[in-house]
Amino acid sequence: MEVGKKLWAIAEGYIPGYGTGPAPDFISHEAACILNAGAHDAHIEITLFFADREPAGPYRVTVGARRTLHLRFNNLTDPEPVPLETDYSSVIQSDVPIVVQHTRLDSRQTANALISTIAYTQ
Amino acid sequence: MEVGKKLWAIAEGYIPGYGTGPAPDFISHEAACILNAGAHDAHIEITLFFADREPAGPYRVTVGARRTLHLRFNNLTDPEPVPLETDYSSVIQSDVPIVVQHTRLDSRQTANALISTIAYTQ
Amino acid sequence: MEVGKKLWAIAEGYIPGYGTGPAPDFISHEAACILNAGAHDAHIEITLFFADREPAGPYRVTVGARRTLHLRFNNLTDPEPVPLETDYSSVIQSDVPIVVQHTRLDSRQTANALISTIAYTQ
Amino acid sequence: MEVGKKLWAIAEGYIPGYGTGPAPDFISHEAACILNAGAHDAHIEITLFFADREPAGPYRVTVGARRTLHLRFNNLTDPEPVPLETDYSSVIQSDVPIVVQHTRLDSRQTANALISTIAYTQ
Repeated sequence: MEVGKKLWAIAEGYIPGYGTGPAPDFISHEAACILNAGAHDAHIEITLFFADREPAGPYRVTVGARRTLHLRFNNLTDPEPVPLETDYSSVIQSDVPIVVQHTRLDSRQTANALISTIAYTQ
Repeated sequence: MEVGKKLWAIAEGYIPGYGTGPAPDFISHEAACILNAGAHDAHIEITLFFADREPAGPYRVTVGARRTLHLRFNNLTDPEPVPLETDYSSVIQSDVPIVVQHTRLDSRQTANALISTIAYTQ
Repeated sequence: MEVGKKLWAIAEGYIPGYGTGPAPDFISHEAACILNAGAHDAHIEITLFFADREPAGPYRVTVGARRTLHLRFNNLTDPEPVPLETDYSSVIQSDVPIVVQHTRLDSRQTANALISTIAYTQ
Repeated sequence: MEVGKKLWAIAEGYIPGYGTGPAPDFISHEAACILNAGAHDAHIEITLFFADREPAGPYRVTVGARRTLHLRFNNLTDPEPVPLETDYSSVIQSDVPIVVQHTRLDSRQTANALISTIAYTQ
């Protein structure tokens, strides 16, 4: 089954600096949910863009054939961690078709807030 | 009226394990809202993808002509229930055009949080 | 400026039956935000689809040239009101290009929850 | 890297009139997150549409090559501020491809609510 596209972008990006509630579920976080419904592993490169410096990356991840990866940006470390409380955007490139959805959990106040949207593709 | 497409995907997927507030409205849940605006019943197959095992499904549902179905993933049981607190993605295939929107209600904390997005289609 | 499409669909639809906080802002509601950026008035027909009955409508609204209308489904009355606590979907047809975004404010619990997504278009 | 489109629209638009929590993070606000992943600066014009008056703008902003701008509508002042508690829509035009995502933080009640969606493009 071939589902998706090879180039995606998420213009929003912001990891809150703190949170309320038990870890790891309620750590404020931001995720790129990546579906690879196909028969071949997806080799993915993520580039992060900022307001006032050159881009970071590429961050490399693999999503196996017929697998999903809910990738927390908080957990990226190589080539550098993603700074908290900092505006960013991301571009996600794959060698096989994938589907990308963006989600944030913001638990800074007494009840968590959530956003999610399909990412941009072309 | 022919509205929609036959292949949809939702890269996000996660049913919180508990909730706050009266059932059934405030049970934490995740739904695929499926519109069949056409003149023929939609025969739909849903496949679920996980992080570390082979896909589950197909789950089969029918949405009547000129009807909507707000399908809670929590309620799927055949061929197997959808595990709680587990990352997944879904691919939704229909024999006639449909429109799919993804929604989650997360009532784990003292006030519910909601997400919704149009699903990916091609 | 010609921006948008003439046929839109929102597969989600549910108006919570109660709310918390001062009216009208915090009445639980659902809206179709409709932008007509063009030089001609948009004559719009909305059809509502349900789980277990024939569709309702058409509901007719006009959005003036170079105007926006944040239409609350709660306020539709002709040919019939939109039932609360009931799953529905909507199809929105216009004679000129428009842009449609779907939003819900759910204030049933102690802090409001919001969803919003671009609607489906073809 | 050429990512995006030159014409975007956000049909939703509403800045809540007050908020709860420390500034600037928890000031109720609405943002257009704009990614310019390309090699050339993006010169952008934003036009705002209202329910009952002629459009405002253009508001002009520049997003540098390989940069992101999370533009708060609250901060626009030239040619005029964006009124609070007022329905609006926006059209965003750029001379090079960009990606636009819409986000609102509503902190009027005791825990913030968030929405986000990819904007409409053509």
